[in-house]
Amino acid sequence: QTGQSATGAAVAETWLPTLQVDTPQQGFDLAIVMARRAVRTTQPDVAMLKAQRSRYAEDAASLIDVSAVAAAWFATIAAANDYWRE
Amino acid sequence: QTGQSATGAAVAETWLPTLQVDTPQQGFDLAIVMARRAVRTTQPDVAMLKAQRSRYAEDAASLIDVSAVAAAWFATIAAANDYWRE
Amino acid sequence: QTGQSATGAAVAETWLPTLQVDTPQQGFDLAIVMARRAVRTTQPDVAMLKAQRSRYAEDAASLIDVSAVAAAWFATIAAANDYWRE
Amino acid sequence: QTGQSATGAAVAETWLPTLQVDTPQQGFDLAIVMARRAVRTTQPDVAMLKAQRSRYAEDAASLIDVSAVAAAWFATIAAANDYWRE
Amino acid sequence: QTGQSATGAAVAETWLPTLQVDTPQQGFDLAIVMARRAVRTTQPDVAMLKAQRSRYAEDAASLIDVSAVAAAWFATIAAANDYWRE
Amino acid sequence: QTGQSATGAAVAETWLPTLQVDTPQQGFDLAIVMARRAVRTTQPDVAMLKAQRSRYAEDAASLIDVSAVAAAWFATIAAANDYWRE
Repeated sequence: QTGQSATGAAVAETWLPTLQVDTPQQGFDLAIVMARRAVRTTQPDVAMLKAQRSRYAEDAASLIDVSAVAAAWFATIAAANDYWRE
Repeated sequence: QTGQSATGAAVAETWLPTLQVDTPQQGFDLAIVMARRAVRTTQPDVAMLKAQRSRYAEDAASLIDVSAVAAAWFATIAAANDYWRE
Repeated sequence: QTGQSATGAAVAETWLPTLQVDTPQQGFDLAIVMARRAVRTTQPDVAMLKAQRSRYAEDAASLIDVSAVAAAWFATIAAANDYWRE
Repeated sequence: QTGQSATGAAVAETWLPTLQVDTPQQGFDLAIVMARRAVRTTQPDVAMLKAQRSRYAEDAASLIDVSAVAAAWFATIAAANDYWRE
Repeated sequence: QTGQSATGAAVAETWLPTLQVDTPQQGFDLAIVMARRAVRTTQPDVAMLKAQRSRYAEDAASLIDVSAVAAAWFATIAAANDYWRE
Repeated sequence: QTGQSATGAAVAETWLPTLQVDTPQQGFDLAIVMARRAVRTTQPDVAMLKAQRSRYAEDAASLIDVSAVAAAWFATIAAANDYWRE
């Protein structure tokens, strides 16, 4: 949530309250969220990001790199959840 | 499985119920599944993905990168299975 | 803080006193700080860095790489915080 | 081994029964096997792979990448063998 | 220290006596030292290295890669120091 | 050592008997050995490798990649030695 405090100061958005999620698939989804959020630290313009995404979606090398990045984020999330062992 | 709920709302597909598999080879296969699934978050058009795959299958650098990505996913899956130690 | 000691010698700035932070999101922010700090070991000119950032912010491959780098720093920070498990 | 079952159906080859090997050097060799096997998921034509290998064997950047990939596979295999500690 | 032994034979320099350092920031600095030392295994000519550094310091992709490399060395150093947990 | 067995069959060289070494610096040196050995799985011609090395030694991007690869091998070796903790 983003918002204004009573004093009018911008309140930082809380977008990552925890790394713990219920299932591996939710962990996978969180990895994608974190991967994209990291991109936004450099390119905050979401409209421009989406335009780029449609371009590199047709570039094989970029798509392979996307998977590498997702794997890196997922590795940490999976460890944080003790790999959802039962 | 994907489907429609009784109310007609789209039901999210469960494609990753667990990271635990019986053998290292099944873990390897799951790594490939996860690697490709990550690509689909950016390029959901499977027909286009297959067309690209036949192109980069002839590019050595892309093939080396494919192996790097598979290794990254496999590392997490192997840890999740305690390396299938007996 | 940077400064001058009583004798006039430059005092090294302490910018990384700890890897322990309270929340995953603070860990994410620290990862970005460390990623940028590492860049400054090679390019200390912050004005030039910002100029480059606006250029590669329009290059998809660079943005994907930015996310990979953030993931690498975050992995260590998350481990240092025991993944903020409760 | 690959083969035909009594009913004529193709039997999946078992090529990775275990990650446990006796020595670090066997672990290294297994890393190379896994790295190449991952490539074959995208380019199953072994003759074409060998042709490409002779080309990128003369490209420095590709050779460095080959070593990175081998390191990634080896890391998991070494962990699976508790680093062959005595 | 490098030097000559009493018999005139070259004595190997000891530049990495330990991975244990007192603070995360010293660990970060050691990561940079190790990253550069690794480069010198391939390009021992320090003058040439510094000339290249001033060139790639203006190339965004190289700078991002520098940060990835620093993160990789730092990950090991941080683990070696148990993340400087108190 | 390589050699001929009593029956004349080639005996495989043992080049990696252990990952355990006495010091971090020896671990670093072993990382370089393993990195180069992995390259030789693809390009066994050592003379050609040395020729390439003198070329990419003048290419900044390749040198950064060399350091990344060394870091990856070193990470495993350091873990295998429990980080040479005292």
